[in-house]
Amino acid sequence: MSASPLLEKLIKSLQIMPGIGPRSAVRIAYHLLDRRREESVQLADTLKEAVEKIGLCSHCRDYSEEEVCPICASFKRKQSGQLCVVETPSDLLAVESSGNYFGQYFVLHGHLSPIDGVGPTELGIDILIKRLSAGEVKELILATNPTVEGDATASYIAALAKRYNISVSKLASGVPLGGDLDNIDEQTIAASLAHRRPY
Amino acid sequence: MSASPLLEKLIKSLQIMPGIGPRSAVRIAYHLLDRRREESVQLADTLKEAVEKIGLCSHCRDYSEEEVCPICASFKRKQSGQLCVVETPSDLLAVESSGNYFGQYFVLHGHLSPIDGVGPTELGIDILIKRLSAGEVKELILATNPTVEGDATASYIAALAKRYNISVSKLASGVPLGGDLDNIDEQTIAASLAHRRPY
Ligand SMILES: [Zn+2]
Ligand SMILES: [Zn+2]
Repeated sequence: MSASPLLEKLIKSLQIMPGIGPRSAVRIAYHLLDRRREESVQLADTLKEAVEKIGLCSHCRDYSEEEVCPICASFKRKQSGQLCVVETPSDLLAVESSGNYFGQYFVLHGHLSPIDGVGPTELGIDILIKRLSAGEVKELILATNPTVEGDATASYIAALAKRYNISVSKLASGVPLGGDLDNIDEQTIAASLAHRRPY
Repeated sequence: MSASPLLEKLIKSLQIMPGIGPRSAVRIAYHLLDRRREESVQLADTLKEAVEKIGLCSHCRDYSEEEVCPICASFKRKQSGQLCVVETPSDLLAVESSGNYFGQYFVLHGHLSPIDGVGPTELGIDILIKRLSAGEVKELILATNPTVEGDATASYIAALAKRYNISVSKLASGVPLGGDLDNIDEQTIAASLAHRRPY
């Protein structure tokens, strides 16, 4: 028996967040009620607004509250002729944070996985084809994850791009900078050996 | 540059929760937008309602959306004549979860800490005194934390209770059940030796 059914409801509701179990939910609920009442109202309002307004950009399928997101709307980025394909919005954010890429994106929201019913339609490949056929993309950069599924998805998209005579490249895989060889899995080491570059 | 200023606002806002840093906030935001839109609206509504409606029970100072919480309103619990004093609402929940206590509670929301400006007023001691002087409490159970501050707070309250001829007890401290002596700090072992019971 809790002193507050509403508090119990809140504790349960907080657990829709990944990584938040019953114990963390209790801690969060008490913390918000104890010290963050004003910010909690703001969080609630922002969350509701985000769910209501944020959809997918019609151009790149990244999350956006606009029909066309700011990245796709940028003339400079369009001019680059580069299109980087990623699996998820967080992957887009990771590439963006590298500070080294100034082209456009396309977000698949997953990878090909017939067993889970994820095919070209689910990944928005029709939209991607429209973009490839429009003649604005000069280079397609595949930045899917270096996994079996990511690689399969990448080669499917590479085949599409070749139909439109678009040059295709792929993120280099290898030993992470600052990484310690001791701590890197053998497959990564094997890949970095296979793709070794002249010194 | 993110594709969505509103998403950035959400990611920032999520970080008012304890234990949620920038990386977790990104993960949570994407997860909610990807797969939990309906539940997110419910979470937002519940959070707002909780902040608006949940205050302190006028009787026990636990969180409650009622003037008097269900525990305090229970006649059976009142009849027990037991009052358990805890530092925080989560401590109340911990005692309640033990399934072994059927009395009433009083929540201090902290412990005496003159250096932080926390004195008897901040802990609601005036309300506690009213309850002790009303003649309904037969046994006061001190369940403050086994720390220097918790112990000091406990002995302050014990002295009050004695004025009203209320018997006072304290949670036993000792080796946790299922605990491994190897892994228990020396002070706990010392305490459990000092309070050893005949076999
Ligand atoms: Zn876009
Ligand atoms: Zn109460």
